[in-house]
Amino acid sequence: MNILVVNCGSSSLKYQLFDMKDESVLAKGIVEKIGLNGSFIKNERADGDKVTLNGNIYDHQQGIEYVLGVLTSEKHGSIKNLEEIDAVGHRVVHGAEAFNSSVSITNEVIDKMEECVDLAPLHNPPNLKGIYAITNLLPNVPQAGVFDTAFHQSMKPESYLYAIPYALYTKHGIRRYGFHGSSHRYVSQRVAELMDKDLSSMKIITCHLGNGASITAIKNGKSVDTSMGLTPVEGLMMGTRCGDLDVGALTFIMQKEDIGINATNTLVNKHSGVLGISGVSSDMREVENAADEGNERAILALRMYEYRIKKYIGAYTAAMGGVDTIVFTGGIGENASETRANVMKDMDYLGIDFDFDKNNGVRGKEVELTKENSKVKVWIIPTNEELVIARDTLEIVSKL
Amino acid sequence: MNILVVNCGSSSLKYQLFDMKDESVLAKGIVEKIGLNGSFIKNERADGDKVTLNGNIYDHQQGIEYVLGVLTSEKHGSIKNLEEIDAVGHRVVHGAEAFNSSVSITNEVIDKMEECVDLAPLHNPPNLKGIYAITNLLPNVPQAGVFDTAFHQSMKPESYLYAIPYALYTKHGIRRYGFHGSSHRYVSQRVAELMDKDLSSMKIITCHLGNGASITAIKNGKSVDTSMGLTPVEGLMMGTRCGDLDVGALTFIMQKEDIGINATNTLVNKHSGVLGISGVSSDMREVENAADEGNERAILALRMYEYRIKKYIGAYTAAMGGVDTIVFTGGIGENASETRANVMKDMDYLGIDFDFDKNNGVRGKEVELTKENSKVKVWIIPTNEELVIARDTLEIVSKL
Repeated sequence: MNILVVNCGSSSLKYQLFDMKDESVLAKGIVEKIGLNGSFIKNERADGDKVTLNGNIYDHQQGIEYVLGVLTSEKHGSIKNLEEIDAVGHRVVHGAEAFNSSVSITNEVIDKMEECVDLAPLHNPPNLKGIYAITNLLPNVPQAGVFDTAFHQSMKPESYLYAIPYALYTKHGIRRYGFHGSSHRYVSQRVAELMDKDLSSMKIITCHLGNGASITAIKNGKSVDTSMGLTPVEGLMMGTRCGDLDVGALTFIMQKEDIGINATNTLVNKHSGVLGISGVSSDMREVENAADEGNERAILALRMYEYRIKKYIGAYTAAMGGVDTIVFTGGIGENASETRANVMKDMDYLGIDFDFDKNNGVRGKEVELTKENSKVKVWIIPTNEELVIARDTLEIVSKL
Repeated sequence: MNILVVNCGSSSLKYQLFDMKDESVLAKGIVEKIGLNGSFIKNERADGDKVTLNGNIYDHQQGIEYVLGVLTSEKHGSIKNLEEIDAVGHRVVHGAEAFNSSVSITNEVIDKMEECVDLAPLHNPPNLKGIYAITNLLPNVPQAGVFDTAFHQSMKPESYLYAIPYALYTKHGIRRYGFHGSSHRYVSQRVAELMDKDLSSMKIITCHLGNGASITAIKNGKSVDTSMGLTPVEGLMMGTRCGDLDVGALTFIMQKEDIGINATNTLVNKHSGVLGISGVSSDMREVENAADEGNERAILALRMYEYRIKKYIGAYTAAMGGVDTIVFTGGIGENASETRANVMKDMDYLGIDFDFDKNNGVRGKEVELTKENSKVKVWIIPTNEELVIARDTLEIVSKL
């Protein structure tokens, strides 16, 4: 069975075609600059064949047409015809409280997803466009929706509620939802598998450190707390997002800088985080390079970044009454060995005997980073959200 | 030497007169409703004599006049005349980066304090009014200023900076300052004394849980992190303040409820926290009573309150690479044994062997709450910010 995984952003669209027989990737690619000048599609086939096609791609439906075209093309394609696509799985950012697991896409589900748009006005509409496009272009192919928030729906009220008037929760749904659910779920399941342990009796902290970053406490296989909140601004310091910030400071900034809500959202989403402190870049590698050259604000940005992860690890250990396993994932978590090392410094009070030598220079592979007798284990697990979506889709369509 | 400690709020004024020979309190009291209808002064003398005097107290200077009047009155006074007041110590809320310790009040210091008004527009102006009033009424008496923020000036940049554009720090001083410094300092020093340990080699977490609440990581006698930030809104859940909240949620609320900056500040300062969730009260005792009667939102408010303290204890343990001693103080920390018990549940991973029986019902006294072999010790230390101010004032005026 072949499953196409689609992840639509506002002006781009990522896809992967899986052969679920062995979970191999037949092709993957990205459509960029949808609706903008210079739009194009980049496709890479399993055998290494790569192609970039330029074209005027006005909307997501046209983007999907390009995807289906390249996947079935004689020269660069991976399948003979569209009938070889058995199902499509969509990444959907916000499922609010309506979705606590992946679902088969029905009209009723689409209606509920439309209701969630309010909570993720930037993310859910393009996700929905992808669903509509597939519905038009492959009307007989079953589709599934996999939500970033669903995995975190297991949180208890004391974890997900903010200490604001309760009516703001009942009226507007203002609470912690969390994101990156597919990633946190994948790496927690994978680490249990690799450790040959039973996930349902483990206490795991998963650090997803990418351009966005979040950290999750997973007890007995369920998310009990996570650092992103109603929005992906909360929690860890990120490339351009501020993470945790005194709300009193936010209103102070609005007053002092005389800026409104939109400019404030732009400030905390686009100009803050590692970029805001370092003044160099939102890209961790560039900031690391600047730090190596002695740039003090770049060094400061790295120390702040690490320190906040450290505090969340401590907080979530307390939340679970202990921890067995800590997982690093995401572009930075998988590759930035110095970041991992600095987070793990002085953590022996938790029973972590981190192998700094082994960690040094390790990039993007499944590997344990603690010494043999370490009570708490630390791992790198490269994430694979697309595979989670493909697996969930397979499971859902198999039951239809 | 007698020292008068003055703590001026916007419409009230607390005072204590100390005899520093033995640090005994000769008299203490409060002036209420300054500038409002029905203003009065309540005074209590060391021998138990209590008096309430009503009067039209229009401003802080008049309030201080009432204080000096009652302290020297024939019937209710504690001293014969004003010459028996040797020095006055003032609580000042915000010292920004200008003050990292208590200071003798000079014109230069007053100028610097005026510059800090911007950061604490509600608190510093009444503090200054108290200083001006004493300057007018007791022109020859030396005065000292003791800042809530000073103790936290030892924090490193990675603890005190927010991950927002660096220019907002240099331009407006937007950073974490922290508050309740005198309380955190007092209880950390006192617990070291009682434990007969050297503060300069201890890792202490102090939980000041009053109507406002903050928690501080104190390593080697110095504050290394604290939960209140630029403003006292950040951090723990409080009586009416929200504590930590996604700033993305804040702008979402502003948009949905169509409220401006002032209403937003009122929302997060006055209508949130324990009151906002429980809908019952900001007073922990009333919320506990409601919870006992089965009120679900009251129960929820308590669980949220405790859970957040627990997470901060975990975070600050990570920040210091371990913890020796945890201190509860403030009205709730000293008295609410159930809150302490719930915070301490499942904390044995840290080496805490909490004595739940001993804790049960203990109120407002210096007592160790862990079992003899507990690796990490937990104490109640009733706070005494006034005594800190008196001691600092004594030290400062002794050097003049």
